[in-house]
Amino acid sequence: LPVKPAPLRMPSPHYPHWASLQADIEAHLKQTIPLKEPLEVFEPMLHLAFSAPRTTVPALCLAACELVGGHRQQAMAAASALLLNLANAHAHEHLTDGPMYGPNIELLTGDGIVPFGFELLARPDGPASASPERVLRVMIEISRAVGSVGLQDAQYVKKTLWDGGEEVQNVESMQRFVLEKRDGGLHACGAASGAILGGGSEDQIERLRNFGFHVGMMRGMLQMGFMEKHVQEERHLALKELQFFMDRDVHVISSFIY
Amino acid sequence: LPVKPAPLRMPSPHYPHWASLQADIEAHLKQTIPLKEPLEVFEPMLHLAFSAPRTTVPALCLAACELVGGHRQQAMAAASALLLNLANAHAHEHLTDGPMYGPNIELLTGDGIVPFGFELLARPDGPASASPERVLRVMIEISRAVGSVGLQDAQYVKKTLWDGGEEVQNVESMQRFVLEKRDGGLHACGAASGAILGGGSEDQIERLRNFGFHVGMMRGMLQMGFMEKHVQEERHLALKELQFFMDRDVHVISSFIY
Repeated sequence: LPVKPAPLRMPSPHYPHWASLQADIEAHLKQTIPLKEPLEVFEPMLHLAFSAPRTTVPALCLAACELVGGHRQQAMAAASALLLNLANAHAHEHLTDGPMYGPNIELLTGDGIVPFGFELLARPDGPASASPERVLRVMIEISRAVGSVGLQDAQYVKKTLWDGGEEVQNVESMQRFVLEKRDGGLHACGAASGAILGGGSEDQIERLRNFGFHVGMMRGMLQMGFMEKHVQEERHLALKELQFFMDRDVHVISSFIY
Repeated sequence: LPVKPAPLRMPSPHYPHWASLQADIEAHLKQTIPLKEPLEVFEPMLHLAFSAPRTTVPALCLAACELVGGHRQQAMAAASALLLNLANAHAHEHLTDGPMYGPNIELLTGDGIVPFGFELLARPDGPASASPERVLRVMIEISRAVGSVGLQDAQYVKKTLWDGGEEVQNVESMQRFVLEKRDGGLHACGAASGAILGGGSEDQIERLRNFGFHVGMMRGMLQMGFMEKHVQEERHLALKELQFFMDRDVHVISSFIY
């Protein structure tokens, strides 16, 4: 964990809040990912879950859950599923960077952790016992955010960008598209999922979805070196959504935009 | 589709029954996998779903559902999710065999279809509206069958076998382990999932789980060239489980062992 102001590529919401949420998620995952024989199968699964760069998506899921009056435990399985899906996507995107366990193991490991993420949500000791309908809804949210209409689409367009050959005026709109589908979409999903599982109203869910979207855009823009005015614009839009929650304690969740 | 008696590596339950079930699943998938821009993302997803060798797992899921009195439509999303999970596992296992769309697209495509399989189960137009609890239970079944305690474990052990270095007496027990986790476990999951969604009792679900296990063992043994007596043994055990359903029409499901 970072102990100093985090560099741009690290999640850097106001440290203590984010760290406390993230630490809870990681502790939960260490408890739930079985570590048993054959270690060649299980150890890389645990490793993979923690080797991807941390993102603010899972922590935002917990924060949104708490904001609507839920307990963070209610959103823990969704936060874990998000973390596992993102770890898998990262591992597969970087499969050729010299993986630690050999490409075959990394590949198969990723395949295991995606269904496992959904399993955490479905289990009777998870949130499904209290509200199966809300859990099913969150599964659809996650599938769309990481799948072919979300992250996967962004990865494809990013690949096209890297391969070059696009006109310069296209590059900026394509970068924005990548940000919207990837950083914006994933954070929107995290926040909406947390609100759904925390028992939020439809209004609260949609406000938090928008808030998450702008948080993601803002953070993605910072990473990609967008101009300050664009970043400020997203922060402003995010803040506007938070005003809906002014009768609540927005202390933790507003740390995601500062 | 095969029009002649299928070779050993193809599913070969009595042709008309299996073909009718399989055709329904494929028609369902063609309808539900979105085919839209960018075609570079969506077309390979459809291609991937249909490029893996067909297995009897999804069809068995429908047959089990009907045997316990359900309508095959109730098990369609589970059969589709199983097919997509197996297509992904196959694509990733054979990623180095010269994929059609380049390894990166194949890889990302696989990542998309696994969550999409769970989404099909979770959707309000799927079986979840009628019985969310049963759907959640099936998700856990599928996650375990394809994940690190199932198929993935088999793939790892198979890899070890191929790399050689095992004592001969170990090879046979390892082959059996692979069959149990892969063919046995997947068919057990398919049959149990169908029975769960068809509204089966716990007894019926467990009988069909055992039936599926022996169907898978039998078919795996045929593919791997096990001695006829071992195959007959599994067929016999499968038949024994079917006796539990003797007051029902076992015509279709018994075609899986002939």
